[in-house]
Formats: sequence, structure tokens, C-alpha cells
Amino acid sequence: MPVMTPAQYEESLRQMRFDVYLMGEKVENPVDHPIIRPSMNSVKMTYALAHNPEHADLMTAKSHLTGKTINRFCHLHQSADDLVKKVKMQRLLGQKTAACFQRCVGMDAINAVDSVTFEMDAKLGTNYHERFTNFLLQMQEEDWTVDGAMTDPKGNRGLAPSKQADPDLYVRVVEKRADGIVVSGAKAHQTGALNSHWILVMPTIALDKADAAYAVSFVLPADAEGILYIYGRQSCDTRKLEGGDIDVGNRNFGGHEALMVFDHVFVPWDQVFMCGETEFSGALVERFAAYHRQSYGGCKVGVGDVLIGASALAAEYNGAAKASAVKDKLIEMVHLNETLYACGIACSCEGCPTASGNYLVDLLLANVCKQNVTRFPYEIARLAEDIAGGLMVTMPSEQDLRHPEIGKIVEKYFCGVADVPTEFRLRVLRLIENLTLGTAAVGYRTESMHGAGSPQAQRIMISRQSDLEAKKDLARAIAGIPGKNSD
Amino acid sequence: MPVMTPAQYEESLRQMRFDVYLMGEKVENPVDHPIIRPSMNSVKMTYALAHNPEHADLMTAKSHLTGKTINRFCHLHQSADDLVKKVKMQRLLGQKTAACFQRCVGMDAINAVDSVTFEMDAKLGTNYHERFTNFLLQMQEEDWTVDGAMTDPKGNRGLAPSKQADPDLYVRVVEKRADGIVVSGAKAHQTGALNSHWILVMPTIALDKADAAYAVSFVLPADAEGILYIYGRQSCDTRKLEGGDIDVGNRNFGGHEALMVFDHVFVPWDQVFMCGETEFSGALVERFAAYHRQSYGGCKVGVGDVLIGASALAAEYNGAAKASAVKDKLIEMVHLNETLYACGIACSCEGCPTASGNYLVDLLLANVCKQNVTRFPYEIARLAEDIAGGLMVTMPSEQDLRHPEIGKIVEKYFCGVADVPTEFRLRVLRLIENLTLGTAAVGYRTESMHGAGSPQAQRIMISRQSDLEAKKDLARAIAGIPGKNSD
Amino acid sequence: MPVMTPAQYEESLRQMRFDVYLMGEKVENPVDHPIIRPSMNSVKMTYALAHNPEHADLMTAKSHLTGKTINRFCHLHQSADDLVKKVKMQRLLGQKTAACFQRCVGMDAINAVDSVTFEMDAKLGTNYHERFTNFLLQMQEEDWTVDGAMTDPKGNRGLAPSKQADPDLYVRVVEKRADGIVVSGAKAHQTGALNSHWILVMPTIALDKADAAYAVSFVLPADAEGILYIYGRQSCDTRKLEGGDIDVGNRNFGGHEALMVFDHVFVPWDQVFMCGETEFSGALVERFAAYHRQSYGGCKVGVGDVLIGASALAAEYNGAAKASAVKDKLIEMVHLNETLYACGIACSCEGCPTASGNYLVDLLLANVCKQNVTRFPYEIARLAEDIAGGLMVTMPSEQDLRHPEIGKIVEKYFCGVADVPTEFRLRVLRLIENLTLGTAAVGYRTESMHGAGSPQAQRIMISRQSDLEAKKDLARAIAGIPGKNSD
Amino acid sequence: MPVMTPAQYEESLRQMRFDVYLMGEKVENPVDHPIIRPSMNSVKMTYALAHNPEHADLMTAKSHLTGKTINRFCHLHQSADDLVKKVKMQRLLGQKTAACFQRCVGMDAINAVDSVTFEMDAKLGTNYHERFTNFLLQMQEEDWTVDGAMTDPKGNRGLAPSKQADPDLYVRVVEKRADGIVVSGAKAHQTGALNSHWILVMPTIALDKADAAYAVSFVLPADAEGILYIYGRQSCDTRKLEGGDIDVGNRNFGGHEALMVFDHVFVPWDQVFMCGETEFSGALVERFAAYHRQSYGGCKVGVGDVLIGASALAAEYNGAAKASAVKDKLIEMVHLNETLYACGIACSCEGCPTASGNYLVDLLLANVCKQNVTRFPYEIARLAEDIAGGLMVTMPSEQDLRHPEIGKIVEKYFCGVADVPTEFRLRVLRLIENLTLGTAAVGYRTESMHGAGSPQAQRIMISRQSDLEAKKDLARAIAGIPGKNSD
Repeated sequence: MPVMTPAQYEESLRQMRFDVYLMGEKVENPVDHPIIRPSMNSVKMTYALAHNPEHADLMTAKSHLTGKTINRFCHLHQSADDLVKKVKMQRLLGQKTAACFQRCVGMDAINAVDSVTFEMDAKLGTNYHERFTNFLLQMQEEDWTVDGAMTDPKGNRGLAPSKQADPDLYVRVVEKRADGIVVSGAKAHQTGALNSHWILVMPTIALDKADAAYAVSFVLPADAEGILYIYGRQSCDTRKLEGGDIDVGNRNFGGHEALMVFDHVFVPWDQVFMCGETEFSGALVERFAAYHRQSYGGCKVGVGDVLIGASALAAEYNGAAKASAVKDKLIEMVHLNETLYACGIACSCEGCPTASGNYLVDLLLANVCKQNVTRFPYEIARLAEDIAGGLMVTMPSEQDLRHPEIGKIVEKYFCGVADVPTEFRLRVLRLIENLTLGTAAVGYRTESMHGAGSPQAQRIMISRQSDLEAKKDLARAIAGIPGKNSD
Repeated sequence: MPVMTPAQYEESLRQMRFDVYLMGEKVENPVDHPIIRPSMNSVKMTYALAHNPEHADLMTAKSHLTGKTINRFCHLHQSADDLVKKVKMQRLLGQKTAACFQRCVGMDAINAVDSVTFEMDAKLGTNYHERFTNFLLQMQEEDWTVDGAMTDPKGNRGLAPSKQADPDLYVRVVEKRADGIVVSGAKAHQTGALNSHWILVMPTIALDKADAAYAVSFVLPADAEGILYIYGRQSCDTRKLEGGDIDVGNRNFGGHEALMVFDHVFVPWDQVFMCGETEFSGALVERFAAYHRQSYGGCKVGVGDVLIGASALAAEYNGAAKASAVKDKLIEMVHLNETLYACGIACSCEGCPTASGNYLVDLLLANVCKQNVTRFPYEIARLAEDIAGGLMVTMPSEQDLRHPEIGKIVEKYFCGVADVPTEFRLRVLRLIENLTLGTAAVGYRTESMHGAGSPQAQRIMISRQSDLEAKKDLARAIAGIPGKNSD
Repeated sequence: MPVMTPAQYEESLRQMRFDVYLMGEKVENPVDHPIIRPSMNSVKMTYALAHNPEHADLMTAKSHLTGKTINRFCHLHQSADDLVKKVKMQRLLGQKTAACFQRCVGMDAINAVDSVTFEMDAKLGTNYHERFTNFLLQMQEEDWTVDGAMTDPKGNRGLAPSKQADPDLYVRVVEKRADGIVVSGAKAHQTGALNSHWILVMPTIALDKADAAYAVSFVLPADAEGILYIYGRQSCDTRKLEGGDIDVGNRNFGGHEALMVFDHVFVPWDQVFMCGETEFSGALVERFAAYHRQSYGGCKVGVGDVLIGASALAAEYNGAAKASAVKDKLIEMVHLNETLYACGIACSCEGCPTASGNYLVDLLLANVCKQNVTRFPYEIARLAEDIAGGLMVTMPSEQDLRHPEIGKIVEKYFCGVADVPTEFRLRVLRLIENLTLGTAAVGYRTESMHGAGSPQAQRIMISRQSDLEAKKDLARAIAGIPGKNSD
Repeated sequence: MPVMTPAQYEESLRQMRFDVYLMGEKVENPVDHPIIRPSMNSVKMTYALAHNPEHADLMTAKSHLTGKTINRFCHLHQSADDLVKKVKMQRLLGQKTAACFQRCVGMDAINAVDSVTFEMDAKLGTNYHERFTNFLLQMQEEDWTVDGAMTDPKGNRGLAPSKQADPDLYVRVVEKRADGIVVSGAKAHQTGALNSHWILVMPTIALDKADAAYAVSFVLPADAEGILYIYGRQSCDTRKLEGGDIDVGNRNFGGHEALMVFDHVFVPWDQVFMCGETEFSGALVERFAAYHRQSYGGCKVGVGDVLIGASALAAEYNGAAKASAVKDKLIEMVHLNETLYACGIACSCEGCPTASGNYLVDLLLANVCKQNVTRFPYEIARLAEDIAGGLMVTMPSEQDLRHPEIGKIVEKYFCGVADVPTEFRLRVLRLIENLTLGTAAVGYRTESMHGAGSPQAQRIMISRQSDLEAKKDLARAIAGIPGKNSD
């Protein structure tokens, strides 16, 4: 049984002292802030389901370090089967939250850092892997949520880190001291940062020697001195301040992203996992990205399940569930959603062990998975909007429904099939709105597009992994052309 | 020169006495309500551009009734060239507002009612066309904005109007009197209703004799006694209450939809254009729909122009404008947008005169146009989100930017290319957010999907207009199969 | 009435002395060669329909030179309406032949050469336009079919003409003499070359001064001394040698392409329309390409009509015509086909006069048209294959059907609905095979892809014509960003 | 080591006495018929690779009956890993043949018949499974190629078997005797029938009691008395009669389909596996289809590898390999191809044991796999045609290339980059033609569409497997709607 209960998780966050701003104001208590709390609930679900025996096989694993049962989010994958279970766990959590549950970034980060530090040490004689293993042991024991922090603000996309007008646009080491390093800069789009106990920072691109100061990886408590957060706003975020539970679409769950700013923050050496080894930055990025591209073949599929279910309900409430065009659209939604799942499963079951012993997904298939994620959720959302009908964006507010007189008119005129309460219909349409246009669209659309790397990043990886030369040889053999490679 | 100036238009609205609710409260002054006002500004633009000599050719026309120069929105199309100019006018207004400017529904309604009432009178000996022409004359003289009101709430999609559990789910005549009729029911999704002087009500589907009470068309002042409005809420609508001008994305313009409820409202006979003639309901729906499906080949293209421009700016600010992948995505956006425009132009230039003398679009091509509009704006939006980057949905609020200390951090870390102020970058991303997820997404996405009929409605019309039998004959002739039709 | 009858056209070809090879053998009589003859029949249809009063409005026009009625294929477009009629004529011919009727290249070439020679003369003081007009007059008087010859073999795509290992890989002037020029090189993929009376040669790319020898345009009789043709083979071409009329799919019509080789061929000066004026080569290519990209919005749509009709017949013969999935696929095919048509019509009706007085299509929309043609016929073909069923590629040969014993088994087992002869079913499936895999697939698929320029060529033109700067300004105005352009 | 060598396989076919017609003539020696032989070579490759130690892990398996090493095509899958290896074996064979290697239908049939006969016996007390196991033992010992024969001609798609005008349009039992049954009817599209030793017949649809005569499954030697074959013709099939090795595209390999007619053929009882048990016909169809839909996630991917390689070669020979548009198209082809592979792998690794102990693929994912196969190969083919250029369908014949004089012209003008012989370029273009338009397009396009069931068949299965009710419950939980299912 993993260490932390959901209640303990929530309580542990209350003990933290984040320096965080939201809509121009400092937030004293993120846990209870109505805009932030739903995102905390999503992470909390990763603790809750781990205590549910029905889901134990997916939600927990046996630590290869201690043999103890731990939350799978703290686990290093020990087999292809572990990789498959990771994806299934993510689908389950997507189904239960219809939101981004945020804890994957840490899981993907530890799995990437493990093998890369091992290989660094083997080649360079460093001792990063031991430091990392010590951290991992603690993380497993304490059942921490860790934010894997990769994406820098990047400034001008056409320039390397050290060529930017402002050197802080990528996180960098500003000072090396006997006892540790001092870092400055920022990480953008930090998913679930304020629901995390620790942050695990990694570089965001392959670097060359000129950018050695940017080749830095380390862990810090998420509320360490000198770290400032600015909360990102989402479409429809302030509906959570209105006090109702219909117009928000998803009453309980959400996701969040924040800017994380380091202003001369100290990191002791035993928390540093890379410092200047530019030649390994590319591998770290590539592996974290691959694990995270795999992740989307699970979590987005789970959210897709909810959206498909909501669309089917909307059709039923409209009296249109038996129309052949509607049924065909639902089939298409399922087909696309399961294609994503197939990619998530395939890159997992084709995974292989790394030098350090944990398992890495198939790089080509993981990138193929994510590339499809940049497309199909958009089409699924379009089909959901088709089935939902225009009412989704023209219907009155919850306040109108609750109004003593106007409410009766709303109930009368927005009734679909006669035996379903109008409120149910409004609720399911608000859920579809939430997923296609509202706060959850940030996770289901934009994050599907840009999370774990933008589409072009996957295309570059697909190109690298596609082994065109071998394919050319196959074609030469069939066409009767003497082969370059067999010369 | 058309009668009304923009200022006069705004003033005329202030004189109206709408009974309207928004978020549970009665709105005393819609014109100045911060959520409603931007939609008024969009309609106002149809008056403003009509006074701009540069746009006179598109924005105005010569009345076939009086020979006077009128706003094209009050015009009956007298030629295919008029139909083409209509589409160009709509593209222009889409470019200037990046929103739904609402006045098209009235223009499309008068053009449909004109020919149908003429044909009704010719066949049935009624005098609807004269009544309608009297109204039209006034509308042109006064330069009214008219809401063409077609879509009923519809309840259970599987049942005819008179078979619904509640007979009011489609607008119907509840009493015929010597001096007029009394109507009850509601029209849903009424675009620009509260920015309109009059409403022109039409039935929403082809009806059979059992539904004669529902075959009703008439005009009323938009603020007539007994009409109640409930304002529809949009994604991110309350950002307009926050007082800033960045996070709204589009500072000045918007669209709106509302539920329009008739509670035993009286209509004098000279304002009634159909009352029981079920056999003409189908033609009225088909023609209004066709004109409105044409419209989308103009207005959505104009909005698309803004979205493409915003994406190009975002790429420039990111320092990514020269990446071949980015350029290719912009080309694809242009390609899709111009394909929509081509459809709008083609169904116009292939238009033909009706029996009453005004011009009707090519029905097949107008439906093809709209069918593409249910697809391409979604793909254009997806590509915009691709180019914009994740920052669009994770960046801080305007309040953070304006904060004396936090603002500096926002400026530092969200800077793209060094010579462009961070605020510009945030502004353009908020505009893209507005069009893809925010208030304008209601117009650019959902309205593209469902406005003027949902996708399946167009497919049925395409099927009817496709003359498969003639195509079969072509195939028989080529394949050497004796033809059924030539027997 | 145009000069030439179909019979006269055929006879005129018999008088020509082509030097042509096909499958390794010299062809003495192309007109009656079973592989070539169907393509001749397609061109012949352009003469036949011009004599049909029902189609006179589309098939003929009044010469702006003589005022006489001429075949529209010899006409310079004098209005946007002429451009629209051109597209409609092409759709008609596509419907009647289900093949490439080849004569468009000449029509598109004369329209391009007309305005470019006019502008050359105006700028450079040359007299090309008068020479061209003299040729045109004759062409109209004699009702010639002209091959517009643009595409060179091109060798290494990465090198300019004069940088190729072999200087002949683009047509060039090898000698200038007092009485004319001598040219060498080749034109590839020459559509209908052997069914043409004359050839009108143009350069294939924008050239710079170093490639002046390649900036050459001229006319020659198609069978001029020194011109050699090698006939291109098509998928399933030899079925035409088998003697039946089912397995060929299209008994009567076809298209053809050939390599046209110039081995030191003399051209008198009065047949030369460009010789070294590299600065005008780009305009000539751009305009010919634009006219030809417009053309595909007509001809391919007509062929699409036949394919849709054949698919509808196949469904009917299978007893599947009422299945909702089949009906929906036919709707999609119509929708895509009409979208192409809309693009063809739109770029025509938006056409504008050139300096020389003839009309040029809208460049942006013509390129958008063709870009869609590189996509939608493929999807239409895919849907046709879906509806046709696997039998299309597994059914026995015509010889089996005609076999005294085996034929009965074929009839028994390949019967669909009982009241339709099996032979009809086989015929319609062979027609679909012809259009999707056979000889006509060369026209419907590959030519749709590469004719008038490959997809990337259109994307470059769309990019050039898209005026992104103006779109950026629209976005700035909406987003509240001070504009670069309005500075 | 499996029993049969490639040479033995070929020799074993020579011993068979098929009654087969091709293009109206009886074929005495199918093995050496130039149209048929390439398909035999493809099957032969399944024997050859099984003797190659490099591929032993994929090509062979250990029999669960005897423990001996057998060809995997004769194996019952004993684990999810076996299912995965099956897909990898198929990809390998697709890569080596660029064609349909035909032997999968038998493998998929035995795996379906195994579990269904087991379940029939368990429920009905029959002894079909023992009979089947005896056959399987022989098949493994003798290393037979078996044709799994499912698809009937079907006549009118709208009528059940017994309602057809001709009762033979589905295979049926016409007589039951003490020693066996007599069957009549036909199986259409029989892949590899003439390269098979035995045929395993199954019903083609779920049947109800009225169609009991059609619920029949049995094995027979492929050349049994009373079985007649009519060979199906393919696009470009007669190029194989021309004697060259370029224009055929694929010199060595191909596929084939034939009509298989039963005219009162006797089957002894010990070769009968179903006879009237209509309630099990649906399961047999569903499972065979599922295994075969999985198969396409392997074989078509292998063929796709060759097509991608050929496209990359063509680009290289054109001097266009570095153009960003070309590179991007190759990436897209790889992406689509690997998505298919991911689906093939995923439905395999999610496979589960049946009651009889062999493994069945995940039904939902196998259908999703095949549904994608009805789409992506078409898009991959379109992109290949884009990269190949128009020359693919306009270039001269092999005879022209071999002509003593004309050949020099062909070599001169069809040269691409100077250091690659023109013949190589022609060869690779002919290979692309073969796969997109020629004989192999039958396998890569039409078979991808219709093999293992047409697209709509998969959509019906996806619908059945999608568990929409569970998805609706997920949506209710999120939206706060009391659940029907949890009532």
C-alpha cells in the first residue's frame, strides 16, 4: 500500500509555502483557491485510486529499490508490461477526471533521468546516478508528486540559449560553489507545479558546448526559497469563481500550468544530476519527450472516453441517438480515440531495457503516437460539437436556470426528450463545452498539440527513426536495382 | 447614402425597451452592458462602412423599389453580381470585426420571404407579397437591422412539432383573430436579436398539414410586448467584465445569441406573411438556408483572414516565421480559407432569378459551401493553435502584466524576438485564443458548424440536388450499358 | 459554325506524317492504332459537340479577331463569362469522354502567350504579338488542335537548365539564323501531341539571364521535320489490343502523353514568340499554369461525374443503394466534386482583363483550385473503390465471360440483383477500375496531381498571392497592436 | 526446422491437378504460367524465410500439439507474444515481396476454427474440434499452405442466402449422406487458392435458422474433384506476358485471387467442422475477420515500407531528396505506415486466451487497425505518386528503352541526377506504378479496402465493441448527472 492517502496529500500541500501570483494577486492558500483547487483534486485522484483494490494492479507497482508497493507514479518501469500498465493507468485517470492529472511529468522525468545519469556516469565517471537514486528512494518512500520541469520560455526560437538578448530565457547556472550551484531563469507551462512537492529540472533542447551553462538538471522542493510562480489563465477559468456547479462543466477536476521563475536559487550538489555535460542533454530531452509522448496515448484517450460518452448522452437527450449520421459520428470518435490508444500500447509493448535497467518506449512509435495526438483530439472535439448542437454555446447561464421565474422558461424551452430533466441536458452540454472550448480544452486541445513537444518536434524524430536507407534497399531489391548499401 | 449613421443606430437601440435577462439578472441598458456592447459594435460597423466611400460599392446598393441608395443589408439581390458583392461585403466585415456582425440573418430572410410570398400569392391568391413589400420599403427607408428568426428549440428531434410533449417547442399560432394572430413559443440561438429593430419570424422545417399552426411567418418590433429574451453565455464572456483590453482578445467586437420567447404575442395581419400554408414552409426554409449557407462563404473567410494574420504575427514574434514548417502551415490555412471563399463566390455567380425577380444562389453549391464551412475553420483553428504555441493557454492574466512587480517578470520571460514588446505578443496570442477557444470561437467554430443548419442538413440537400440519375446515365454511356433513362 | 467536322478532323490527322514510336515499334498510322485511337476520339468529341446546337453556347464563341463563330478551344477569353463557359465546356467534355480530351493545353497556351507577347512588345519593342496574332487567326480559321508544350524533362531538379550535365534537358536555341532559329531538346508528358496539328512551345520555369537560350517560345506543325515522338505507356494500355470492349472499361475514349524530341529543328522567325527574353519567362509560365489550373476545375469534375454515376450504378447492381453508409459516401463524392467545380467557377468569375484585352483568371483562386484537385479526386476514387467492392479487381476477364461454358458460370456467380444482367455489373466495375487503376487513372489521378504543376508549385503561388502583410494588419487592428504598415 | 523447402513446395504444387481457367483458356500448368508464377513465388517466400536462421524466431514456432518446430503459418497462437510475432512476420514478408503472400488466410482460419469448434462441442456435444485437430496435426506435419475460404459471391446484398434468386450464391449443403456431405456454390476473391494444398471453407456471415444449409465449414484438397477455378484479372496483368522485367514493376512477386466453384462436391464427415450450427456462424466470421484485420497491420506495413523506400529513391534520382516539401511527405508516409503497425501490434499484445487455449486478438483494436488500413495506404499511395512525378505514367515502355536507336533517346531524356543510370530511375518508377496502379495495387489498395471485410463491417464491430454505456456513465459522473446504470 503506498504511503500517502488523498487526505494526507492535501494536507501535505497545505504545509508548503509557495510564492504564487494569480490574476495580479498573491495567493495565500493555493489548495483552497477555487481556480486552483480542481487541479489539486485531479492529482489527489492519483492517490485515491492507488488505495482502491480494484485498481491496484494499474495504480501501484513493486519498487525495484525496496521491494515495497509504491504508487506507480514513483516507479521506474521494469518491463514492457510496466510501460503498458502506465498507459492503462493514465487512461483510467483521464476517465475519472476528464482533465490533466499532472503527475505524469514527474514519472516521465525520473525514468529519463535514471538511464541518462547512468550512462553519463559510465562514460564520464561522474556520480549523478547515485545522487538520483537517493532522491528516487526518498520520493518513493514519501510518495511525492514531482513536477518534471523541462520547457524554457525560449525567447526567439531562431537563437540558441546563449545567443538570446536575455541570457535568462533558458534556465542556467549562474554560479558554481563548493556546496552547490546557483541557478536563474524560468520554466514555462509548468503542469501541476503548485500541486507538487518537488521539481525536477531538465534542459529543454540538445545543447552544444557554447551553451554549457544551460546543461543543468537538479531537484528542489517546489516551494524552495527564490522560486516564484505566476499562474496561467485558462479559457473560462473565472467560472469557477461564480459559485455554481453547472457552467464550470467539470465540477471537481481541472489542470493547471504556471510560469516558474528562478531568481538566483541555490541547489546543493547532491541534488544536481547534470551540470555542463552538454553531450547528454539531447538524450535526456529525447527520452523524457518519448515517455511523455507515450503518456498522451493514455491520458488523452481517457478524456476522450468522457467526451464520447458526453456526446452520446447529448444525442440521447436530443432524441437523436438513433439517427444513422449520429451513430456514425460516434463510431468515428471511438475509432480515432482507440487509434491513439493503440499507439500508446504499441510503443509500450515494444519497449526495451536501457543500460540502467529500466524500460524505454519504442522511440519511433512513441513519436507516432504523439503526432496522432496533435490531430485526432481536434477531430473528436469537432465531432462532439457537431453532435452537441449549437445550444452548447447559446444556452443561458446557471443563474438563469436557478432564477425563480426565468428558470421555468429555461426548463420549458431547453427540454429535449420529455423524460430527461432539462438540467441534465444543460449539464452534459456544459461538459462538452468545457472539453472543447473551456478550461479542459487547454488540456484536451492545446496540450495535445504542444505538450511533450510541438508537432514538428515529433516529425523530426520520426524522420530520424525511420531508417529510410533500409527502406530504399528493400525497394532496390524488388525493382532490380543494384544496391548502394550492398556494394 | 443610407439613412442611418453609426451614432444614430446606437441611439435608436437605446430607445428600445427589451425585456432581457443575462446571468440571472434583468438588463436595463443592453447597449452599454459590457458583455453585450461588443456585439452592438459589430452591427454598428455595418452602418459605419456604408458611409465609407471606399466601400460604397460593396456596402450599398440601389433599391429596386425606390431607386435610392440603401445599405446592402436591406437589399433584394437583383443580379448574380449582387450575390457576389454580398459575399465580398461579408468578407470585409469579417475582416474588420473578427466576429459575427449579425445583420446577415435579416438580409437572408427578406430575400427568402420575397420570392416565397410571391409564389404563395400566385398559387393561392393570398396577398402576402404586398404586405411583405410594404414592410421592406419601410425597412429600406429606416435602414433597420432585422433579426431573421428561424430556429425553434425543437425539443425531441425525433418528433414533429405537434407531437412534442409541449406544443410550444415550435412557434405556433394559438389564436386567429379578425385583426391578427396570437403566437406562442420560442426561437433559439437568435443571433443579434438585441441589436435588431425588428424580427422576421419563419418556420424552421418543412411541415405537413397536421402542423398547420406552425406554418407561420411575420414581423414584429424586436421589443414588442410579450417578447422575452434570455441571453446566451459564451466561453470567456465574463472577461469583458474584468475591465482590461488584452485578455478579451478582441477589445471591440463580438457576437451574441439569445433565446426569444413569445408568450401570447399579438401580430396584426399586415405583418403576417404566412399562416397555415404548410406546402410553402419547405421552400422558405430551403431558400433562407441557402442564402445563409452562402453567407458563411464570406463572413467566416473574413474572420479567417484575421486568424491567419494573427498566426503569422505570432510566428514572427516567436522568431519562427522563416521555418519551412510554419510557412507551410500558413499556406494551408490560406488554401483552406480561399477554398471557402471560392465556394461562396461560385454559388453566387451561378445564382438565378426567382419568379419574384430577386436572385437566388445555386442551391447545390451553397450547400457545398456550408458543408466545407463545417470543416475547414476547425482545421484552420487547429493550425493557428499549432503556430501560436502552448503559451496561448498558459500565459498570465492582464492583471499580472499590469502588476508593478510581477509585470516586470512577465515582460522579461514572455518576450519573443527582442525588438517586439512582450505586450504585443500577449495581445496576438489572446486574439488567437479568442477565436479558437473564447467568445469568438462561438462564431468561428460552433456557428460554422450549426449556423444555417447542421452538417447533416447540408448533406441531405446535396443529395437532393446531386441528380444521381443523370450521372448514372453518363456512366452507362461510357460503359456501354443500355440506359434506363433513355429507354 | 466552326470549320471542322469530326470526320474532317480525323481525316486531317491522317494527312500528317508523325515520326512516332510505341512499345519499341514505329507507328505508321497513329489514327487507327488501337492504343492511340481512343485518345483521338476524345479530341474528336471537341469537334462533334461544337456542331451540336444544344451545346453551342458552351462549345463555340465569337472570334474577337473576325467576329466569326469559332470553336471555343481556339478562342481568347473576352470576359469573365467566357472564363466561366470554358470551365463548363470542360466539365461537359469530361462527362462525355470520362477521359482527358487534350485540347485544353492549346487553348490555355494561346491565352497565356497573347498577353505576355503583348507586354513584351510594349516593354521591349519586339513584334511577337503581331506574329502570334497571325498564327491565332489561322488557328481559328482552320480550327486546329494545338498542343501547348511546356514541361521539359528537367533532369536533376536541383540544377538550372544550363547547369545540367546534358544541356538538352530543357528545350533551347542552339543556333540563331537570319531566317529563324534552330532548337534542340525535348518536352515530356505531351498531352495529345499526336492528335494535334500544331505545337506551341513555351519555357517551363522562370529563367535568369544565364539561361537565355532556354527562354524560347514558338509554333511548329506537330509533324515538322526533326520532331520525334515516343509514346508513353499507361496502366492497362494493352487491354486495348485484346479486341474486347468490357475489360478496357472505357470502350471509346482515352488520353495520351508522349515525349516530344527536337533534334536541331528549324523554326522560321514568324513562328517565334520569345527568344531570349528571360524576364518574361516567369510570367508566361505563371499564366499558362493559372489557366491550366483553372481547367482542372472543369474537366476533372466532369470525369468525377462519371465516376460518381458509375459508383451509384455499382451500388444499385449490388442491391446496396439504400444502405445509409453507401448513400453517405455518394454524398461525400458529390460534395468533393462540386467543391472542385466551385473553385473552377470562382477563379473564372473573378477573372480580370490583361493589358492585351483577354481575360486572366484570379491567380490565387486558380492555384487553390488545382491544389484541391491534387487531393479530392484521390478521395473520390477511394470512395468509388469502397462502393465498388473487391470484385472490381478479382473478377474474370471478358474472355471468360464470352467462353461458351465458363461464361455461364461467370454469369451465374457474378450476378448482383437478379434483374440486372451480370454483364452490366462487370461493365460498370471495369469502368471504375479504368478510372481508378487503369488507363484513365493516368488522367484522373496522376494528371490531377502533376498536370499544370505539382502540388508544391501551387503552394508557392498561394504563398505569393496570399498577402500575409495585409492579414497581419487586420490582426493588429483587432488586437490593439500598433501596426508596422500604418507607421 | 519446418518440413518443406521452397523447392519442395513448388514441386508439391506441380503434383496438383487444378481445373482452372484464365482469360478464357484452361491453364495446364499454373506453376509456370507467367501471370500466376509471381504469386507462387510470394508464397514460396514463406517457406524460404522459414529456413533462414536470421528469421527463425518470427517465421517458425513450436507446435503445441507435437512440440516440433513448425512454420508459423501452421501454428495456433499460444500467447500474446505469438500474436505480436505473427504481425512482425507479416511485415517482414511484405518487405520481401512487396505483394500479398497469401498464406495468412489459412493461418487466420485455423485459429478461428480451433476455438469455435471447441466451443461448439462444449455446448452441443459435437466432435468437430477433434476432427479439426486431426487436420491441423497433418497440416503442421506436411507444412501445407491452406486457403481459408470465406467470402461468398453474395448476389443481392439486401437478401439473406436462402432468399437469393439463385440459392447457390452462398456455399451450401445440398445433400447429407452417411459418409459425408455434398456442397455447391462458390467462394469469390480466393486469395492464393491455386498456390494452396487445401482449402478450409467457412460461412461468410452470421446466419439464422432459415439459412441452416449455409452454416457449413470443411476442408478439402484444393484440387478436389468438382472444384473449378476462374482466375481474376488484375490491372496490368498482361505485362507479365511481355517478357521484360522493368514494366512489370515487381519482377518476381505478386498475388492472386480466383473464383472457386463447387459443383456438387463431396466432403467426408471427418473433414466437416460445422454443418447447420447457425448460432456459431457469427462467432466464426467475427474471429476469422478479427485475426485477418490484425494481419493487415503487418503485411500492408511491409509493403508500405517498400513503397516509402521507392519514393525516397525516386526523389533521390530526381535530385529532389533535400527539398523540405519532399522530406515532409516522406515523414508523413512513415507516420501513417507506423500508425498502422502500432494498431497491428496493439491488438496483438492485448490478445487473450480463448476457451480452447489459443489466443485471440483484441476485437476492438483489430477492427480499428483494419479501419485505418482502409484509409492510410491510399494516402501513402497518393504521396508516393506526388513524389514520383508525372513521369511514372508517361514514360516509354521497356521495349523503347531496349530499342537500338530509340533507347539512346530514352536514356538521354529520362536521366535524372547525372550519376544514376536512367534505367534505375525507370525501374523505381515502375515499381511505384505497380504498387499504386498496377498488379500490386490490387493488394495494396483494393485488398486494404475490402479484404477481411469492407470498411462498414469494421464500423459495425467498432460500434458493438465500444461500450458506449460505460462511457456515458463516465460523463454522468463528471457532469453531476445521476446515472442510469448506477440506479
